[in-house]
Amino acid sequence: MGKTNPGNYFEDFRIGQEIRHATPRTVTEGDVATYIALYGSRFALPCATSFAQSLGLKQAPIDDLLVFHIVFGKTVPDISLNAIANLGYANCIFGAPVYPGDTLSASSTVIGLRENSNKQSGVVYVRSVGRNQAGEVVLDYVRWVMVRKRDQAAPPPDGDAAKPPAVVPADRLQVPAGLDLARYDFTLAGSKHRWSDYEAGEKIDHADGMTIEEAEHALATRLYQNTARVHFNQHTESQGRFGKRLIYGGHIISLTRALSFNGLANGFKLAAINGGSHVSPAFAGDTVYAWSQVLDRQPIAGRPDVGALRLRSFAAKDHACADFPGKGEDGKYHPAVLLDLDYWVLIPR
Amino acid sequence: MGKTNPGNYFEDFRIGQEIRHATPRTVTEGDVATYIALYGSRFALPCATSFAQSLGLKQAPIDDLLVFHIVFGKTVPDISLNAIANLGYANCIFGAPVYPGDTLSASSTVIGLRENSNKQSGVVYVRSVGRNQAGEVVLDYVRWVMVRKRDQAAPPPDGDAAKPPAVVPADRLQVPAGLDLARYDFTLAGSKHRWSDYEAGEKIDHADGMTIEEAEHALATRLYQNTARVHFNQHTESQGRFGKRLIYGGHIISLTRALSFNGLANGFKLAAINGGSHVSPAFAGDTVYAWSQVLDRQPIAGRPDVGALRLRSFAAKDHACADFPGKGEDGKYHPAVLLDLDYWVLIPR
Amino acid sequence: MGKTNPGNYFEDFRIGQEIRHATPRTVTEGDVATYIALYGSRFALPCATSFAQSLGLKQAPIDDLLVFHIVFGKTVPDISLNAIANLGYANCIFGAPVYPGDTLSASSTVIGLRENSNKQSGVVYVRSVGRNQAGEVVLDYVRWVMVRKRDQAAPPPDGDAAKPPAVVPADRLQVPAGLDLARYDFTLAGSKHRWSDYEAGEKIDHADGMTIEEAEHALATRLYQNTARVHFNQHTESQGRFGKRLIYGGHIISLTRALSFNGLANGFKLAAINGGSHVSPAFAGDTVYAWSQVLDRQPIAGRPDVGALRLRSFAAKDHACADFPGKGEDGKYHPAVLLDLDYWVLIPR
Repeated sequence: MGKTNPGNYFEDFRIGQEIRHATPRTVTEGDVATYIALYGSRFALPCATSFAQSLGLKQAPIDDLLVFHIVFGKTVPDISLNAIANLGYANCIFGAPVYPGDTLSASSTVIGLRENSNKQSGVVYVRSVGRNQAGEVVLDYVRWVMVRKRDQAAPPPDGDAAKPPAVVPADRLQVPAGLDLARYDFTLAGSKHRWSDYEAGEKIDHADGMTIEEAEHALATRLYQNTARVHFNQHTESQGRFGKRLIYGGHIISLTRALSFNGLANGFKLAAINGGSHVSPAFAGDTVYAWSQVLDRQPIAGRPDVGALRLRSFAAKDHACADFPGKGEDGKYHPAVLLDLDYWVLIPR
Repeated sequence: MGKTNPGNYFEDFRIGQEIRHATPRTVTEGDVATYIALYGSRFALPCATSFAQSLGLKQAPIDDLLVFHIVFGKTVPDISLNAIANLGYANCIFGAPVYPGDTLSASSTVIGLRENSNKQSGVVYVRSVGRNQAGEVVLDYVRWVMVRKRDQAAPPPDGDAAKPPAVVPADRLQVPAGLDLARYDFTLAGSKHRWSDYEAGEKIDHADGMTIEEAEHALATRLYQNTARVHFNQHTESQGRFGKRLIYGGHIISLTRALSFNGLANGFKLAAINGGSHVSPAFAGDTVYAWSQVLDRQPIAGRPDVGALRLRSFAAKDHACADFPGKGEDGKYHPAVLLDLDYWVLIPR
Repeated sequence: MGKTNPGNYFEDFRIGQEIRHATPRTVTEGDVATYIALYGSRFALPCATSFAQSLGLKQAPIDDLLVFHIVFGKTVPDISLNAIANLGYANCIFGAPVYPGDTLSASSTVIGLRENSNKQSGVVYVRSVGRNQAGEVVLDYVRWVMVRKRDQAAPPPDGDAAKPPAVVPADRLQVPAGLDLARYDFTLAGSKHRWSDYEAGEKIDHADGMTIEEAEHALATRLYQNTARVHFNQHTESQGRFGKRLIYGGHIISLTRALSFNGLANGFKLAAINGGSHVSPAFAGDTVYAWSQVLDRQPIAGRPDVGALRLRSFAAKDHACADFPGKGEDGKYHPAVLLDLDYWVLIPR
């Protein structure tokens, strides 16, 4: 097994360690088409060069979540190949827009380590950064993962992480350079509703449902070159906890975002992810519905044309969302809930 | 539900109403590859830049049916979200070739409205036009759909449509500007048979069969950003009339066209669709076969190099087409028939 | 059936016959993305333009196996539509790199014919060559196929083929013009192991397993425009020997190559295939694992920076490969083995 990558175990990480992840990836119009085929997303900006150019961009940028998944996928072989659980992510900020032809690479810094009391595993905190070929940051986020120890007797390499902010402050959201919404065409974008039409507390049922097939989530997760074994190997998963392959949580995020077009069509760009809970595992055959609540509405300094909405989107399985299934006052989720995602979008004012 | 698009109901339409549809879409080489993966089409013109250039075009144009599906998909949220049935389409003419990088948008004009006698629904006739970023028409067709009324008591907004021609006259077929077939390579195109080799009445069995999987038709229909719910939502369709998701009729058209290569390889371009009947619904697991009958053979004025064949292609499910299953003299279709499509192709003389 | 291609039967072939195959194919970034979605391959060279440019190439070349499958697919309608069995291939040498935008075409020469003693079929040997739009050879290989006779009484057109070499000599392997590995980044490539780290006889378990869905292999095989009926038609295959669709053997090769990244990440380019046995048929639902043995290690003349490894990779179904299932001393394969492939890769010295 000397040539095979066994992945890192908890005791292999060190605070301050920098890891350059393998396989830089040129993102192309091919990825864009495959992404549309997987989710059917209809937001105008990543779909149409003419629309992007009318807003001052050079061409249609790559969908923000496609960037997220590709960067995230690179980190898996080094960070979470021996993960027991992906515990969370936070402070995820989208930077420079990515265009077809850009090459993405990723690196991570270990910012925290905490052994579990059973000494069989520990929590690894990393800050991961995705960059384009010019070195510009396109994505920056913190993630924490519970990772197995190889050797239970290995000494604990403790060093706790600074807790990331629960919410990315609106003044850290990045508006793409050159973007100007003066010529934003609301009809082409699919909705007349702008920033000021949304109120904190407002709930939006995204109405549609999408059933997931095994081939679909596997195609997606391979597109992102995410190698986490639970998504691909029915031979081992048939003996596992669920008896079947788990769907990559990011697939549910992308489906939720695509469904959210119906009600949030002008939320043209994901600016940040504050955090998310993958409340239940999703499997092939599940039909995913979604709804969102507006949590906050903030201006962007110096930008009379664009504002930010903080949204909380829920995905639910086999349950239409007209009754807004979420988290009860007792802190318990409705049994249909798959995802509880807190994020910022940019929207014309 | 104030932000969610409920779709238009019958009484929301007005004669002469113009609807600009959402989400312009840049069509790319990514779409071309996904389309080939979905249908395996082998017509040389949309597959090979060198072949296209040998005929005087700047590069390989986008497959005509991919253009059709993308334009059609845009109209769904505004026209047929509350449809009970897609009743028909006609007078569908392909205009300027679409090339990778072109951005397509669509608009529709309401040209007819007829309430049903039960007052619960009515038929909406629209003329839909797809254009590229330069405003050139790439597709122009009439469609009629039975749409629910929201309020049975709403007054009938009648206004009958002019009946579209049953067949697009050959002199309205458009040959791409600059096309010259002098260097057309019949070997590379896959067949020696040209315009004069086909006779009206001739029947062609396309021999091969292709089984459809759920993931395949869903990927296709999302690629076209067609949001019709019956194609995607097993949770609701399991309670519906068929207990399963319906396959988008256009998917069967594309499969039929791809299968027709075997026998019609030189029919290099779809020039018009005269009409079509989706005789039976198709479902995942169906194996689609196809056969065609030549209905007519017409020259193109001023073009010694190119002619037109009017074809009637049938798709049949789980039934090889050596016995040419079609429509009997009693007007009844063979039970295997899925599709009965009447169209024009261009072919070298 | 006059217009339908019936395929060639054994007696239709003649020694020395040259066949230009149909449907030239422009390979694009769309194909690259679809290929990654199908196999999740992570070799840096075909994934990243920046990586390719750091090695002196103009951009990321198309994955060698994608080139193989596209060229191979073109030969099917003329060579193997009436095949009973694909018996073998050999002396397969990869030539000029293929880049997005290149158009591939294929031709074959009949180099051998041998009737079977039962007079119902015969073996056809062809040398097939794939070329880009400039006429440069991108692939050159010999294949032999058992093909049905149409008419048992047809006279035998015998003429035996020269036996291809069992192994492509290392001095015939082609290094892409301009390639210079001085700046090869082992971290980005995913492994520190170079040519001199591998020893003949060494076995490498590639660890991961990938389950195949019907939609996935069908999408792949259509992408290659390979029309062999056994892969696509459940209606006929349900009555066939296995009761289900067979997976194209090349799909297993591509999966095996993708899995081999884990242990052979620096084997950046397939240089030649010496031969392969598709030991057992593969079906949807199978989980494919792989392992490799190093057979040989050869320098490349005049190249201090690059060497060649001769590898024998096995794919096994529903059987993790830590015990290296292969071919026993009795010449019998382990029952899990799907593929036994002998090939050369280039790797930094």
